[in-house]
Amino acid sequence: MEFSELIKTATVEDVLLSRPGVAAVRGTLCITSHHLLLSSCPRGDLELWLLIRNVDAVEKRVHNLGWCHPRGVAAPCGTPGSRAPRAPSRCAARTCGCCSWRSRAWSSAWTSPAPSSLLRRKTPSRGLFPSHESLAAQALCSLDSVMLTYPFFHRPPGLRLQHGWHRAVPERHLQRVASQTSQWRLSSVNGDFGACPSYPRAVLVPAALGDEAVAKAARFRQGGRFPVLCYFHPKNGTALLRSSQPLTGPNRRRCREDEQLLGTVLGEGERGFVIDTRSAQAAKQARMSGGGTEPKSSYPRWRRLHRALERGRPLQESFARLVEACSDPALSMERWLGRLEGSRWLSHVKAALSTACLAAQCLDREGCKVLVHGAEGTDTTLLVTALAQLILDPACRTLEGFQELLEREWIQAGHPFQLRCARSACSHARGKQEAPVFLLFLDCVWQLSRQFPFSLEFGEQLLLTLFDNAYASAYGTFLCNNEKERSLCKVRESTHSLWAWLNQPEEKHKYLNPLYSHNPLVIWPSVEPQSIQLWQGFFLRWIRPSQHLDEAWVEIQRLVQGKNSSLQESTGKRLSQPLPEPSAGTENGETGTAGTR
Amino acid sequence: MEFSELIKTATVEDVLLSRPGVAAVRGTLCITSHHLLLSSCPRGDLELWLLIRNVDAVEKRVHNLGWCHPRGVAAPCGTPGSRAPRAPSRCAARTCGCCSWRSRAWSSAWTSPAPSSLLRRKTPSRGLFPSHESLAAQALCSLDSVMLTYPFFHRPPGLRLQHGWHRAVPERHLQRVASQTSQWRLSSVNGDFGACPSYPRAVLVPAALGDEAVAKAARFRQGGRFPVLCYFHPKNGTALLRSSQPLTGPNRRRCREDEQLLGTVLGEGERGFVIDTRSAQAAKQARMSGGGTEPKSSYPRWRRLHRALERGRPLQESFARLVEACSDPALSMERWLGRLEGSRWLSHVKAALSTACLAAQCLDREGCKVLVHGAEGTDTTLLVTALAQLILDPACRTLEGFQELLEREWIQAGHPFQLRCARSACSHARGKQEAPVFLLFLDCVWQLSRQFPFSLEFGEQLLLTLFDNAYASAYGTFLCNNEKERSLCKVRESTHSLWAWLNQPEEKHKYLNPLYSHNPLVIWPSVEPQSIQLWQGFFLRWIRPSQHLDEAWVEIQRLVQGKNSSLQESTGKRLSQPLPEPSAGTENGETGTAGTR
Repeated sequence: MEFSELIKTATVEDVLLSRPGVAAVRGTLCITSHHLLLSSCPRGDLELWLLIRNVDAVEKRVHNLGWCHPRGVAAPCGTPGSRAPRAPSRCAARTCGCCSWRSRAWSSAWTSPAPSSLLRRKTPSRGLFPSHESLAAQALCSLDSVMLTYPFFHRPPGLRLQHGWHRAVPERHLQRVASQTSQWRLSSVNGDFGACPSYPRAVLVPAALGDEAVAKAARFRQGGRFPVLCYFHPKNGTALLRSSQPLTGPNRRRCREDEQLLGTVLGEGERGFVIDTRSAQAAKQARMSGGGTEPKSSYPRWRRLHRALERGRPLQESFARLVEACSDPALSMERWLGRLEGSRWLSHVKAALSTACLAAQCLDREGCKVLVHGAEGTDTTLLVTALAQLILDPACRTLEGFQELLEREWIQAGHPFQLRCARSACSHARGKQEAPVFLLFLDCVWQLSRQFPFSLEFGEQLLLTLFDNAYASAYGTFLCNNEKERSLCKVRESTHSLWAWLNQPEEKHKYLNPLYSHNPLVIWPSVEPQSIQLWQGFFLRWIRPSQHLDEAWVEIQRLVQGKNSSLQESTGKRLSQPLPEPSAGTENGETGTAGTR
Repeated sequence: MEFSELIKTATVEDVLLSRPGVAAVRGTLCITSHHLLLSSCPRGDLELWLLIRNVDAVEKRVHNLGWCHPRGVAAPCGTPGSRAPRAPSRCAARTCGCCSWRSRAWSSAWTSPAPSSLLRRKTPSRGLFPSHESLAAQALCSLDSVMLTYPFFHRPPGLRLQHGWHRAVPERHLQRVASQTSQWRLSSVNGDFGACPSYPRAVLVPAALGDEAVAKAARFRQGGRFPVLCYFHPKNGTALLRSSQPLTGPNRRRCREDEQLLGTVLGEGERGFVIDTRSAQAAKQARMSGGGTEPKSSYPRWRRLHRALERGRPLQESFARLVEACSDPALSMERWLGRLEGSRWLSHVKAALSTACLAAQCLDREGCKVLVHGAEGTDTTLLVTALAQLILDPACRTLEGFQELLEREWIQAGHPFQLRCARSACSHARGKQEAPVFLLFLDCVWQLSRQFPFSLEFGEQLLLTLFDNAYASAYGTFLCNNEKERSLCKVRESTHSLWAWLNQPEEKHKYLNPLYSHNPLVIWPSVEPQSIQLWQGFFLRWIRPSQHLDEAWVEIQRLVQGKNSSLQESTGKRLSQPLPEPSAGTENGETGTAGTR
């Protein structure tokens, strides 16, 4: 059933939109298949678009108030309906955006004096006024078919459908590795997603091992996620691998091919490290349910290190607690610090960065190969391998390299975005599978960018945009859980790529770090607790105006631009880095805090 | 007794200087009247100067190790002895600097294989090796005469003695006020420091009141600190006053002249606010010891607000606890946040900023006159009035205006720097009168600069330099407790002004905020706990390398400079703001973390 079939009344007149910090707006509220749209009355000079996926909760209040709690992500530039938005999309994004996270303090309330149900009820009505909440929940859940979501209908002007999809990621990856070593080859053992449904069609495996052995090894790993190469360290020829847990089980099963795979990875007399992202006890307990870890006896040259990283529900709750604490305006300093501590979010940031540093150290300083896995190998595993690559590899720290890293280590590597980011990050109704692992990664990247203000080519704005799009997007990039699903849904054929949009010159400059200069070295972050900071730009995004800080950023961009253009004038040369447009520069760092200004 | 008379052995050969993070240096240690000097052997290419006032503690260890714990402030540029320093002074500053705060982790150890006592004992010896600790403490304390301190001997090249002293501060202040109103006049009732020993010779009082009445009012205020004007708000003609507590005492004494003074301040039908920086209970208790507060009955048009701000020992201990927590490298995130909370330092920052905002709001929004006082009126009172002026007055946010604010509201207003900053901020031995009130002010200014990155003309480096100089300086600016003492010691005649040194073009550019642009508005900071941050640049100054952040700052300065010079080229005009020298730009933000790099 399509969402549009549930719509009983498409339009409600004379609705009041109240947002904290700005004057209320009276207008007309429309619901379409993909958006809530508020057009202000009488002049219609304000038009707000909100992706329905962004609605956190729909509540019915006494006095027939229909409350709507949208999250901070707004409709993209394009217009899905027949009317072009009159206000620039930036405005819409900002104004909707201010309605963030939580219902109470940052909700938008559409108050209709003559309220009517917008949605047709699927169940028999018990009265004139149906329960919005249950209806909306059902309606949103019934969007089980990805292909009915907005990205399949969004057609932004100036973009071609096929553009921006990173199709040949494994091939380009191999190309880079092959220039340094012949130890790795591209395997098409997963060409039909048969060996591992959450891997892409092509992966890098040891050149010495045939596809048959690889396929057998896959059967010994949870979800078929056999060890694959994710990073080759050119400095000393070491490599970073990832997988899921071996299916050792209570009977201590072994798999010759898996042992062989990990054996051929190590050279003569070499030793490797397995970094297990669970505690030793959790890894042991996993044996009871068929999982486990690599026993010393079967993998004698691999030394196991356990670094427990939180995921799943505890991580979700940690995030929710922090958001709750951030939004509480009436805290004393002591109480705030107590709640910051109690949320444990910064501990998770510290633990993730520490573990990534450990992996990077094993590679760079010990010269050892490293295999990272937890249980499924789709969450904390990717967190660690992606961060380790950012630390080690200067190529990953460019805007293009970072996009490829995300594509390779998160999207194609099978992080289940659809499950983990199913609802608004702050929705009260949360699925069991939801967890802000990707957000934790973005937070860690922000910590790196803060400690190394020159070394990352992109800035905070990119991280915020990635977060927004991972949860609700007009683009197909973060749709589905893995490449197999994306292939079935024809995501690449039928939706636009986020990267294509981001990389348009008029967009791209917003995400660039004006202070960037190539740093060929490994960047070792300080992971001491005193060095880890709350990511205010994210957690206080809709709470405290960051106008001044944003403007400072824009000013620096303007300065760089001024310098570069004067350089150009004097030398007549083009610079390697595209420059922002002068007029666009001032719009730049405005991250949508208009509502609270 | 001069310190030099205590020196038994002026030189010890073959001493080892060990600092965390860098290789140990072997050299010759000399002690002079004002400095410890280490010259490396055999080439003498490293020379470290440390003001003796910076020595936190001198300890005698087993195996005859003589430990010395200097604080992070190093010898200034000039050379007191006959030898010119071979290493640039920047280097010395950095290297000594890394030996910060605390003894254990950031100590410098001068290990002499054949240790000998450097200091002559004043008390009979109980053995060959006298107690360094007691000796040093005695020796340092015996420097009771300010006129024997280093500023009286320091003669930096290129500076004239009389230069840079803000002599006519009250006169200039009146000049500004007089252009807006005739309600205030300059009084010379304190011309001989008779009315109030901790006030300057000239102060601003209501024009309607004669000096005789003022003198009588002074006798009714602790330490003679009668209410004086500290800021006139041109927008609405309101005024900020400060004083000490009235000497109400247990018998509820009254003073007609004091009541008259505060009465004439208010116009027809006007009401004012007294912001008492103590709790209502503390103010009440103060009556028992002769103090008190303004009772409603005698001052009917003044409404009292109590905002308890910590000072004295609790503030000192709060600071010590935070420094301790910052220096502990082996903390978990939870433990660190717990100790950050336990130190309560950020609560003090929040409380100070909140109270300053309250005062500013009463002036700017309520249009009411405000009198601020606590007990003595020399600590939290100045904290609040100085911060309120920064918030309200754009003129105070320039480099020059900020220096004048410090001169007017801290130095000439009689904050007892000599007592409050007697020892190293982190010395274990602390006097009863010591308290980091001025540091708390600098922290609050830093919070403002972070929230308003454009609005302050100066940057973090100035705040750090001010802290350094308040505790140990080669300049006379922060010497003594008030103008009377400074006058007796002939500080202005015999020492150089810190401002003269800071305002030299080659120094000044280090302290400028490259992003500054004049902001004529009131800057209302967010004082919610989530918005207050640990001042990492200060508290982690010698612990975590801030190299990258410093470099970013320098880069921005370079960009501004580049932009400005290209502007100059194209327009041929001079800019109003002096520009940093190209070569000096790269040395700029290096705040002395070399030791931990």
